[in-house]
Amino acid sequence: MGNRNRLDLYHARCVRIGAGVLAQCALDCAATGARRVLIVTSAPIARLADELSEHLAEQGLTSTLFKGPDGEPTRADLSAALTSAQDFGADFIIGLGGGSAMDVAKLVAALFGERQTFDEVVGTGLLAGRALPLACIPTTAGTGSEVTPIAILEDEAAQLKKGVVSPFLIPDFAYLDPQLTVTMPRKVTASTGIDALTHCIEAYANRLAHPVVDSWALEGIRLIGENLEIACNEPDNLSARENMLIASHLGGMCLGPVNTAAVHALAYPMGGEFHVPHGVANSLLLPHVIRFNAEEAPERYARVAHMLGVADSGDAARDAAAGIARIEDLSAGVGIDRRLRDVGISSNALPGMAAAAMTVQRLLQNNPREMNEEQALRIYEAAL
Amino acid sequence: MGNRNRLDLYHARCVRIGAGVLAQCALDCAATGARRVLIVTSAPIARLADELSEHLAEQGLTSTLFKGPDGEPTRADLSAALTSAQDFGADFIIGLGGGSAMDVAKLVAALFGERQTFDEVVGTGLLAGRALPLACIPTTAGTGSEVTPIAILEDEAAQLKKGVVSPFLIPDFAYLDPQLTVTMPRKVTASTGIDALTHCIEAYANRLAHPVVDSWALEGIRLIGENLEIACNEPDNLSARENMLIASHLGGMCLGPVNTAAVHALAYPMGGEFHVPHGVANSLLLPHVIRFNAEEAPERYARVAHMLGVADSGDAARDAAAGIARIEDLSAGVGIDRRLRDVGISSNALPGMAAAAMTVQRLLQNNPREMNEEQALRIYEAAL
Repeated sequence: MGNRNRLDLYHARCVRIGAGVLAQCALDCAATGARRVLIVTSAPIARLADELSEHLAEQGLTSTLFKGPDGEPTRADLSAALTSAQDFGADFIIGLGGGSAMDVAKLVAALFGERQTFDEVVGTGLLAGRALPLACIPTTAGTGSEVTPIAILEDEAAQLKKGVVSPFLIPDFAYLDPQLTVTMPRKVTASTGIDALTHCIEAYANRLAHPVVDSWALEGIRLIGENLEIACNEPDNLSARENMLIASHLGGMCLGPVNTAAVHALAYPMGGEFHVPHGVANSLLLPHVIRFNAEEAPERYARVAHMLGVADSGDAARDAAAGIARIEDLSAGVGIDRRLRDVGISSNALPGMAAAAMTVQRLLQNNPREMNEEQALRIYEAAL
Repeated sequence: MGNRNRLDLYHARCVRIGAGVLAQCALDCAATGARRVLIVTSAPIARLADELSEHLAEQGLTSTLFKGPDGEPTRADLSAALTSAQDFGADFIIGLGGGSAMDVAKLVAALFGERQTFDEVVGTGLLAGRALPLACIPTTAGTGSEVTPIAILEDEAAQLKKGVVSPFLIPDFAYLDPQLTVTMPRKVTASTGIDALTHCIEAYANRLAHPVVDSWALEGIRLIGENLEIACNEPDNLSARENMLIASHLGGMCLGPVNTAAVHALAYPMGGEFHVPHGVANSLLLPHVIRFNAEEAPERYARVAHMLGVADSGDAARDAAAGIARIEDLSAGVGIDRRLRDVGISSNALPGMAAAAMTVQRLLQNNPREMNEEQALRIYEAAL
């Protein structure tokens, strides 16, 4: 984890942050010359989508909604959304929702017009371009998908998650409006918040770590440590909600240049096979993976601990351990599930999951400590 | 300096960081479909421009050089560069150099085709668009101009600097290649480095301060504190050079959303009337303005001091004072001028300068402490 890795940063051109910025989206849309806007969203937040449609109508734009699933999106959802976009004749795509809605929106904007199929672009750097302009508006504070070059779908047949990674997936516009997150259920606030924390921690303690990304990651960790409990306990606290959105955004900014590591690799099989929401899977695994990694990189995890409010004792290993305890307390305090068995996973599933996790070498190779299948199994067992 | 200001961030779409990224610029240029590239640069770095031309030629692109002045650019320089771009039929503009070359390149890319004149766009938000794609490649580590929405020229007739501020001035591509900065003279390394420090400090201690920008500013301050002396004393140290480029870049990222304050306002008349280089003017004023401001916002300046290595004593005013001493030591250690009289300014010029500084309300209104003409004069006198 030296600081001489080459770094390529791809940014959204425009990011607006603050209560009320949703209204600005319609103005930005209109300024691009767009006329017909497809809003990819999900049923629970239809009210917010209606509000956005009204803003667009005020600017003379026509819009239609595509309501995707509540849970993780599938290839079938993408196909349906693409058909909806083509039938409507969309010339601008907005993703409004959590990572699922935004990921589908990103793929619709990229694949509109059928120059490439989803199968052709699964992997890294295979997208030839993006067909339509794109804005993303998160209604959870977790994935940071509004600024990542990543979109992930479930392949129903293969029971596997498949990811597309390309700078062309990064939206043109992103809006972080805390008013859109105040109705998020406590459980979702909690698990998506821990997901954002995982992004920041895995980017900071990463073989590809870089000082620029470090500063984003550390600030994200600090903001989550100070705001997650408040956001859960006082859902209308706009300051805490905005700070959580910023933290999630900073975590997302880390994902492109550095990406995640073993927590995410081990979480993949839990999503694909057991349909555990992404944030929940990460939060269950995070302390156990850190405990495994900290032996190799105690200084990094000590710094994480300091950002979470642990005093610097001068003993990195001790501080790292205190940081793990702080993360476990934080998770418990906001009431998220603590064990794999709480989400319906039993011990006989673990060997298969460990084998599946080993296929995610794209992320495992970033991990500060090498991890083999046997070690992955031990981590699942510890988390069971 | 609460944290509930609304924030609009405009980013360069692609930023590449590391030794050797210069070569990547030609590939990115070619990928946009460009054929004829105007490189705006300055005489002392012609060798680097030749290297870039060779890379472009290898990708099948034709290029020509416009060599601007060593010092601060003027309206006449912009006119000449625009003529050069039109005559050459440029379809891509690259700024390669310090802030001067990059600022001219940004304005050429924006004003090419004569849809608007410079006079029509002086001020904030008046540019209607940018005519040509644009890349910026800094060869100093100071202005961060490769990511700012700002370009500044000297109006020779008015003896005043005039600024254009617009998101359209932010380049599409930026390249931070430490190999391009190793030949920078020590004096330039020093003054541009203190300029970057000034950007970070003025963005952090600013009425428009925001947590996202704070994290960039603080990381920039830390990197400068740890690397400026090394970059001056070991010019070939690529690690220190890269860290200084990153710090300058982070400072530049702060300038769009938050911008600077009284140091820059008071530096303006020194540039316009006395032709003191921008970085030198800032470095002469910085400790004196901080001393004035710290009475109003000691906590902010204490945090700056901590980033510069001052231990946290728990007494903000004391730490802020130690920070000022550290900045003065840093400036002295790298051998930059310390007093206004060292750059040819005498006491009888100060009242006129104080009056001129008061016209820069755009920046003065960001200052954490209100400053009137009398107080500006006292600061100039202290710096004399």
